[in-house]
Amino acid sequence: MKGLDKILLAHGGGGKLTAQLVREAFLPLLDSPVLAQLSDSAVLPELPPGRPALTTDAFVVEPPVFPGGDLGYLSVCGTVNDLAVSGARPLWLTFALILEEGLDGALLQTFIEGAARAAKEAGVSIVAGDTKVVPKGKGDRAFAITAGLGVVPRGVDLGDLNIRAGDRLLVSGPIAEHGTTVVACRHGMAGSGLRSDCQPLGSLVQALLDSGVALRAMHDPTRGGVATTCNEVALKCGLRCVLQEDSVPVGKEVAAVCDLLGLDPLYVACEGRLLAWVAPEDAERALQAVKSHPMGANAALIGRMEEASPGSAPVVLSTRFGSQRPLDYLSGSDVPRIC
Amino acid sequence: MKGLDKILLAHGGGGKLTAQLVREAFLPLLDSPVLAQLSDSAVLPELPPGRPALTTDAFVVEPPVFPGGDLGYLSVCGTVNDLAVSGARPLWLTFALILEEGLDGALLQTFIEGAARAAKEAGVSIVAGDTKVVPKGKGDRAFAITAGLGVVPRGVDLGDLNIRAGDRLLVSGPIAEHGTTVVACRHGMAGSGLRSDCQPLGSLVQALLDSGVALRAMHDPTRGGVATTCNEVALKCGLRCVLQEDSVPVGKEVAAVCDLLGLDPLYVACEGRLLAWVAPEDAERALQAVKSHPMGANAALIGRMEEASPGSAPVVLSTRFGSQRPLDYLSGSDVPRIC
Repeated sequence: MKGLDKILLAHGGGGKLTAQLVREAFLPLLDSPVLAQLSDSAVLPELPPGRPALTTDAFVVEPPVFPGGDLGYLSVCGTVNDLAVSGARPLWLTFALILEEGLDGALLQTFIEGAARAAKEAGVSIVAGDTKVVPKGKGDRAFAITAGLGVVPRGVDLGDLNIRAGDRLLVSGPIAEHGTTVVACRHGMAGSGLRSDCQPLGSLVQALLDSGVALRAMHDPTRGGVATTCNEVALKCGLRCVLQEDSVPVGKEVAAVCDLLGLDPLYVACEGRLLAWVAPEDAERALQAVKSHPMGANAALIGRMEEASPGSAPVVLSTRFGSQRPLDYLSGSDVPRIC
Repeated sequence: MKGLDKILLAHGGGGKLTAQLVREAFLPLLDSPVLAQLSDSAVLPELPPGRPALTTDAFVVEPPVFPGGDLGYLSVCGTVNDLAVSGARPLWLTFALILEEGLDGALLQTFIEGAARAAKEAGVSIVAGDTKVVPKGKGDRAFAITAGLGVVPRGVDLGDLNIRAGDRLLVSGPIAEHGTTVVACRHGMAGSGLRSDCQPLGSLVQALLDSGVALRAMHDPTRGGVATTCNEVALKCGLRCVLQEDSVPVGKEVAAVCDLLGLDPLYVACEGRLLAWVAPEDAERALQAVKSHPMGANAALIGRMEEASPGSAPVVLSTRFGSQRPLDYLSGSDVPRIC
């Protein structure tokens, strides 16, 4: 991207500078033959048998570069993960950017490189894109918006409605690392040993699917964290989710920084952790399958589903002291712009 | 969306207010059973036979409401049109919003209604979405980002590389109406009788495909207008495009406003016009097929492709006075933020 110092309005105008930006900044880094055709749509090979899965995410993370990731890397991981937890094999992605006039060209390059790296790790191709530029003061450096297409193979049927009382809940690793890292950066605590958990979960999910356990549903606990995701699930399946405080893995640094900032790790986003609901008889086998994968070394069984009883909260935390604390939905926006 | 006065940061936080916004603002208006499942991905029925087409667009139009459309309506049309001109039947869409804190709830409702109306007109469903909120002063009311999935039926094979010398170029109606309308609004000339051409082109494209003419390629001339699209095509197929000034349909109001603002309609975006390259022997039949459709009543044959000759511009305009004027790529950003 030689000579690209600052992003100008004309880089989003659809003319010469847009074409140059695409040809010199995006195409060489993203290394995608379909994208390189620069058609109005990416026309792809016929899909393997199964149901297509489609998803989208907008990313406005602040700061846009943080330990363990950046806007581009995060946006590709986020969309790959939404596909993976639906039981889909992630295949094709789109990548759109809304840039603020004056954005540093090197920072844009960081985002594109991050997206390319995540796509490579996840085994997906970025096949379509769009770039718009807004005047200085009408954006915030860069927003990234990804969409993803995958295929749920025939025979795979996951969903919250499959969850039964007695099912166990597994998390693939320590929680809250992404959100805590981003918030720590904003408080000048980036050097606190924290690192985002941001990573593409496709291969971990595949390992779990391949293990043949009776898997009911999967989610990745992003905005709102584990507590909010569990509330959404409990609401859908009409059961109660009981989390064991003792069992939830939380890193030492994350616990310390959350304590300092008044955050509850259960409400802070992960961007590379898997929540999986599994039949009780297969729970240990599922745990071993996840632990055998490099991304799941610190996985744990953290909860179980129960019949809902009138008047009880949909999600409760069994504390170290033996009491039960209701875990409601995230009510405000404790940690804005973490994704 | 009762009681939604202003958008708060917490509406994008992933907690209670996000859930409420989705349930009260998006779901009732978008009327999409798949979206209503609120899964991490929309898992869709298996696709009909053919090659999937995937595309994305980001929309930052200013003002976000204009005669003939709004941010939501435009964003769905834009993505439907990118699919349609690729020969794909548009099927499923995603719809993401990046909102500025303090956005008027009624304006958000306008965008969602516009997206819903366009989807209905186009016969597509919005099956996935995401909403983020950025602090006041870090955005500009609302940006919308759509992605679309369609299927190119077996046997349909369109592309710029199919274009041959002698092929004719057809436009489905008067050009530059979208861009001129948006820019006119910014200059307080919204009452000038202008109206955006923004519309979903799926059914028009289908009529042309059904006519059985030897169709080579299609495009919708958005950013950069007809002149820029023709340059991109000429570059790809290695031919020269000769446009007949006399034949290019330009509305009286558009001509007048462009004249006043120093714009050349050939460089101003359409958002509901089709450019189609057709074999010469089928050109008249293609024109009749398009004219028989309500969206194509004022269609015209406006150019033809020639062998490139060394030193000549890839796109030239044969003027009313018999001279030939080169039409280069749009060089700057004459009309920023028209889409």
